[in-house]
Amino acid sequence: MEKQNRSGTAGKVIRCKGSAVCRNPGEPLVIEEIMVDPPKAWEIRIKILCTSLCHSDVTFWKISIGPFALFPRIFGHEAVGVVESVGEHVEEFQEGDMVVPVFRPNCRECRDCKSQKGNGCSIFGDKLVAEMPRDGTSRFKGMNGETLHHFLSVSSFSEYTVVDVVHVVKISSEFPAEKACLLSCGVSSGIGAAWKVADIEEGSTVAIFGLGAVGLAVAEGARLRGASKIIGVDLNQEKFEIGKKFGVSEFINPATCGEKKVIKEITDGGVDYSFECIGLASLMEEAFNSSRANWGKTVILGVEMHNTPLAINTYFLLRGRTVTGCFFGGLKAKSDIPILAQKYLHKEINLDGFITHEVNFQDINKAFDLLLEGKSLRCIIWMD
Amino acid sequence: MEKQNRSGTAGKVIRCKGSAVCRNPGEPLVIEEIMVDPPKAWEIRIKILCTSLCHSDVTFWKISIGPFALFPRIFGHEAVGVVESVGEHVEEFQEGDMVVPVFRPNCRECRDCKSQKGNGCSIFGDKLVAEMPRDGTSRFKGMNGETLHHFLSVSSFSEYTVVDVVHVVKISSEFPAEKACLLSCGVSSGIGAAWKVADIEEGSTVAIFGLGAVGLAVAEGARLRGASKIIGVDLNQEKFEIGKKFGVSEFINPATCGEKKVIKEITDGGVDYSFECIGLASLMEEAFNSSRANWGKTVILGVEMHNTPLAINTYFLLRGRTVTGCFFGGLKAKSDIPILAQKYLHKEINLDGFITHEVNFQDINKAFDLLLEGKSLRCIIWMD
Ligand SMILES: NC(=O)c1ccc[n+]([C@@H]2O[C@H](COP(=O)([O-])OP(=O)(O)OC[C@H]3O[C@@H](n4cnc5c(N)ncnc54)[C@H](O)[C@@H]3O)[C@@H](O)[C@H]2O)c1
Ligand SMILES: NC(=O)c1ccc[n+]([C@@H]2O[C@H](COP(=O)([O-])OP(=O)(O)OC[C@H]3O[C@@H](n4cnc5c(N)ncnc54)[C@H](O)[C@@H]3O)[C@@H](O)[C@H]2O)c1
Ligand SMILES: [Zn+2]
Ligand SMILES: [Zn+2]
Ligand SMILES: [Zn+2]
Ligand SMILES: [Zn+2]
Repeated sequence: MEKQNRSGTAGKVIRCKGSAVCRNPGEPLVIEEIMVDPPKAWEIRIKILCTSLCHSDVTFWKISIGPFALFPRIFGHEAVGVVESVGEHVEEFQEGDMVVPVFRPNCRECRDCKSQKGNGCSIFGDKLVAEMPRDGTSRFKGMNGETLHHFLSVSSFSEYTVVDVVHVVKISSEFPAEKACLLSCGVSSGIGAAWKVADIEEGSTVAIFGLGAVGLAVAEGARLRGASKIIGVDLNQEKFEIGKKFGVSEFINPATCGEKKVIKEITDGGVDYSFECIGLASLMEEAFNSSRANWGKTVILGVEMHNTPLAINTYFLLRGRTVTGCFFGGLKAKSDIPILAQKYLHKEINLDGFITHEVNFQDINKAFDLLLEGKSLRCIIWMD
Repeated sequence: MEKQNRSGTAGKVIRCKGSAVCRNPGEPLVIEEIMVDPPKAWEIRIKILCTSLCHSDVTFWKISIGPFALFPRIFGHEAVGVVESVGEHVEEFQEGDMVVPVFRPNCRECRDCKSQKGNGCSIFGDKLVAEMPRDGTSRFKGMNGETLHHFLSVSSFSEYTVVDVVHVVKISSEFPAEKACLLSCGVSSGIGAAWKVADIEEGSTVAIFGLGAVGLAVAEGARLRGASKIIGVDLNQEKFEIGKKFGVSEFINPATCGEKKVIKEITDGGVDYSFECIGLASLMEEAFNSSRANWGKTVILGVEMHNTPLAINTYFLLRGRTVTGCFFGGLKAKSDIPILAQKYLHKEINLDGFITHEVNFQDINKAFDLLLEGKSLRCIIWMD
């Protein structure tokens, strides 16, 4: 028996006015009317309040060949919304709940979810999946009946989307929506990488390659842990000014100097922790090489744009360096997002500074321009 | 003022009957008479009791081009000996002390030596050095006056050698010499990697690539930590029989099956800890790929034979895998060798099983043959 909802839409296909469909790789999104299926068992349908653009959307939006190139597609994975209706067996959520979708599943039942380590899920897999995780199908159709692909099981660039319960976290409806949106991916990923994965100690030296929202969230995490030096590396000179607000204490522009040598000079032979937040194997290698022998740890956050492997000098490893990586900052979505939200309310973390722009959904392509031109950290895209 | 020693040799050049000189890369060593200078300040001259061959000797013995190809040279870095005389300022050692040389310096004064992490030394550097570490010169001369190069600041394939105090650890003279010799490099490196670097927990699954003395010392360390499964990977089928004695519970021969797939099948999608103890980038990659998502950790011990970089799939990193490496098992020589020696005396670690052969110094080339043919773990080479 179906639970009916206030708007009377539960169990029915929603004809949804605004979805930003990507028809071809790298092309501007097109706002189209689409059909959104009702949620199946263990799924919920969400009315998106606002969403934002993460560089991972851009990376996959550009991919034109191979198994990851799925078009037409609805991108978007950083968002917050309100539950419109729930599918069978859903106990955790109900209509009206404010929720944050997360691309990293967290079933809370499997060995991995129950373990203290990492944030993978052994039941829902640790691969980047496109469609709905349980049956691998889509809940979106174009008006001509064609299937529209999901992205990372979230697809938030749509007025309505359907998401599996393992990909959703409830958040207090008092919480400012646009701040909740930040916790959905980039900012959580950066803070988590600094706190959970690197576990930065007071007095540590840190280098961050790439000062987008992800890199600056690492800086925020490092600053709050009392890092003594936070070196930002970016080709965009403007990132230094904004970086200072997040604790970046020195800035290196590799276009004007060799970052590796400079980092070794201004630290004790290399940093204690380095982070790659760009998505290029060559910069991952630089990050690794700029870490200190004996205990230097490099954390990869960037999603490699061309799937190029990271080449590591094995002698540098033997001298005691470590390299690791994480999706979603190693955070377990269900338990850690509420903690971060709490910290924001207690003014223990800065989220406001990450929002540099806001646009209406119709102007979603503007968010792409701003990110690609290096002008924005996060641009909040408001549904109407 | 010089302290004189019992044999009256202190302060004088020793004409030393037996040194195994390597004149050209990859060629059998030649037992020659050589001249060994007295120790300079902070150095000691050691009469070697016995030495053994580690694969790192073989790796550098084969290198015929580049800055590491230094000939004529005296190899050997796994040994035990007795102090013949000491140089100026040496307080820690005196004539007659039984000592173990270690290629990894440990000054105990610098930031790195004082730290709890790692085992590098920021004063003496973390690079593999050939000659004496303070002045970069040699203490060996051929009878015609030519300079003979050191190896890893140890050069134990000689009746007498000179070693800096930061490369030497005192050990009780009651301790069996050939067991002390094992602690000088390979066995300590393997146990240390399992205990200090990987820090294996009870019930963990472990894969070890390469079942030489180093790999089997990892197995010994893993066994003592209560690993639930210790998978050995080796091309030499005979290593399985001997491996069982060190706790290897399953054996994979990559010549007959794809090790990566098999490991994923017989474990929960990959091992908790994998170790590379061969020295080939391709096997390091296999070791990494056979580790589990979410918390799998790969420890590189092998010294890459061709300096080929390790190529890592960055998505595998993002899913929560870690790769690190260590020289000398991450152990701090001065404090950790005595601990291992103690554990041997208390029968808490097995050292005896690593000694598969013993030869006289004149037959040193036999030790090379045995290792290269995969017949020996460690062959003790006794001075006369
Ligand atoms: N691991 C995760 O869970 C996770 C989560 C979110 C984002 N990401 C990834 O993190 C990376 C950053 O995301 P973002 O949203 O902050 O992106 P962004 O575009 O806002 O920031 C990237 C920054 O890198 C700089 N940059 C680009 N090329 C450079 C180069 N060659 N040298 C130096 N700087 C360079 C840019 O100027 C920009 O400031 C992306 O790869 C994204 O896919 C990963
Ligand atoms: N990091 C350190 O501090 C440290 C210390 C000692 C030795 N090492 C290095 O550790 C490695 C092992 O040293 P060892 O003395 O035990 O050597 P070893 O020769 O005794 O053992 C190597 C083993 O690897 C196996 N092997 C070779 N090629 C293989 C392949 N392609 N696939 C599977 N197995 C293969 C051999 O059959 C052998 O059993 C060497 O690279 C050595 O330089 C490092
Ligand atoms: Zn799970
Ligand atoms: Zn993202
Ligand atoms: Zn060795
Ligand atoms: Zn030191």
